[in-house]
Amino acid sequence: MADPAMPPALAEALADTAAAIDATLDAVLPPVEGAEARLFDAMRYASIGGGKRMRAFLVVEGARQFGVARASALRVGAAVEMLHAYSLVHDDLPAMDDDDLRRGKPTVHKAFDEATAILAGDALQAAAFGTLAEEDTHSDSAVRAELVRCLARAAGARGMCGGQMIDMLAETAEQKLDEPTIGRLQLLKTGRLIEFSAEAGAILGKAPHALRHALAAYGRDLGAAFQIADDVLDATATTEALGKRAGKDADAGKATLVGLLGVERARAQAERLAEQAQRHLDSFGERADLLRALARYTVERKS
Amino acid sequence: MADPAMPPALAEALADTAAAIDATLDAVLPPVEGAEARLFDAMRYASIGGGKRMRAFLVVEGARQFGVARASALRVGAAVEMLHAYSLVHDDLPAMDDDDLRRGKPTVHKAFDEATAILAGDALQAAAFGTLAEEDTHSDSAVRAELVRCLARAAGARGMCGGQMIDMLAETAEQKLDEPTIGRLQLLKTGRLIEFSAEAGAILGKAPHALRHALAAYGRDLGAAFQIADDVLDATATTEALGKRAGKDADAGKATLVGLLGVERARAQAERLAEQAQRHLDSFGERADLLRALARYTVERKS
Repeated sequence: MADPAMPPALAEALADTAAAIDATLDAVLPPVEGAEARLFDAMRYASIGGGKRMRAFLVVEGARQFGVARASALRVGAAVEMLHAYSLVHDDLPAMDDDDLRRGKPTVHKAFDEATAILAGDALQAAAFGTLAEEDTHSDSAVRAELVRCLARAAGARGMCGGQMIDMLAETAEQKLDEPTIGRLQLLKTGRLIEFSAEAGAILGKAPHALRHALAAYGRDLGAAFQIADDVLDATATTEALGKRAGKDADAGKATLVGLLGVERARAQAERLAEQAQRHLDSFGERADLLRALARYTVERKS
Repeated sequence: MADPAMPPALAEALADTAAAIDATLDAVLPPVEGAEARLFDAMRYASIGGGKRMRAFLVVEGARQFGVARASALRVGAAVEMLHAYSLVHDDLPAMDDDDLRRGKPTVHKAFDEATAILAGDALQAAAFGTLAEEDTHSDSAVRAELVRCLARAAGARGMCGGQMIDMLAETAEQKLDEPTIGRLQLLKTGRLIEFSAEAGAILGKAPHALRHALAAYGRDLGAAFQIADDVLDATATTEALGKRAGKDADAGKATLVGLLGVERARAQAERLAEQAQRHLDSFGERADLLRALARYTVERKS
């Protein structure tokens, strides 16, 4: 987090959210005794104490636009981070991307074993939906049901899982994917969950339709910019700076815009998307400044 | 389904529910075009057209006690069956039970591949929660949120996933599990989801607490009886009659009550549990006769 590209106010707010999310996850996933303790250990290992928590930050900052109680936003943020963590655990499995390193430490199937990694991912997904549905998340059950409905869409076959399927098929395909197909792959694989994260604050705040729509559009463009910037970093940064193996996309023959357009044109496209994301916030006031700063940082970061 | 132990009225009702569940799943998981079509194909392969649909039948019959619209009950039944199907797909993976055959056809990772099986399971779980949260399931959002909350508990680390974790550990443990631990393993692994299935009808019908509690208790005892009967069948029936590999528990050194108590004592315990399950229905009238018949059949079936 000592990235010089990050403004101090954003760094501080991200660190605050990350600490609060870890505390929330610790409460939602308490350590247990008994034969299934290993499963909880793996779930906590996968979800607590790692990552920038960008998705949770989007929930918290989105919710703040509408004066939502911070405890509500943190529970939804924790749910999104559990969902995200499960997807990383499964993506890292030998049958998928086969990765040994994640956030600078051994992946779950390396630290535990493959069966435990599959089950920990499965249980994290259930915990994400369960957390959203519990009364502590919001007093209005219509809000809770809407959060579940939208997260399920973002996470399922027409969202994250569908994107990962396209990605797996691309690795073995004879022809390279074209630009629209790569765009769609990334929209599904990472974009939908980032979009949901931004939109969730508006759902929690029962925001007017236009503002909910604006936050979702911000999240969609931010997610696209983030993914391209991630691919650029994978192609240009070191493993040490990333905390995960660099250059693996090219090694795996992954379909990325960097591979198709080259680093410079991909970077320019990410910058355009980050500017577009900020324009969706025009009807929000100063209170959305951190969301604007996040969009700029997303394409300027070095790790 | 040509089991002579099954009363014709029960056979007919089960077949009716199974057909209606397949139609509901076909609507919830429509075939799609595009790069992710393979994922939908695998999800449909895993979930449509197989099994007795006992869990969905419990939802439908439970809901019928309270005059709930059949379309609502079928959507919840479809959600439970998707959740159950995902658990079978993941349990069959090479890193888990490593099974090639399920319901008489190749398992998903055999018919497709391992990555597709992992993703199809993940997406089926998301679809289960998404289906519960959609307005078509029930007009009252409090009912929808409660269904999600309870299914998440039944499916997660303190339910199905936790039970499967204990089961995986038991295979490599030096000591055999004792009777209480096996009971707890089976309560978590299969019991909680069957309990939820029975309870879901009462949630849909906003039933008085005592009746909801009675249906849940019926489901809990039925689930325990079902699991022991399943283990007895695994030890005594043929692969052909089961449509899945027989004798695999003993081969895998699985912790079952049959292994601990022997076939006869395990069978007697299943019968006691099935009787106990029926007694929980004492405050229900004739309308619960099919639920009573199911409890009896569970321990008398030959496949």
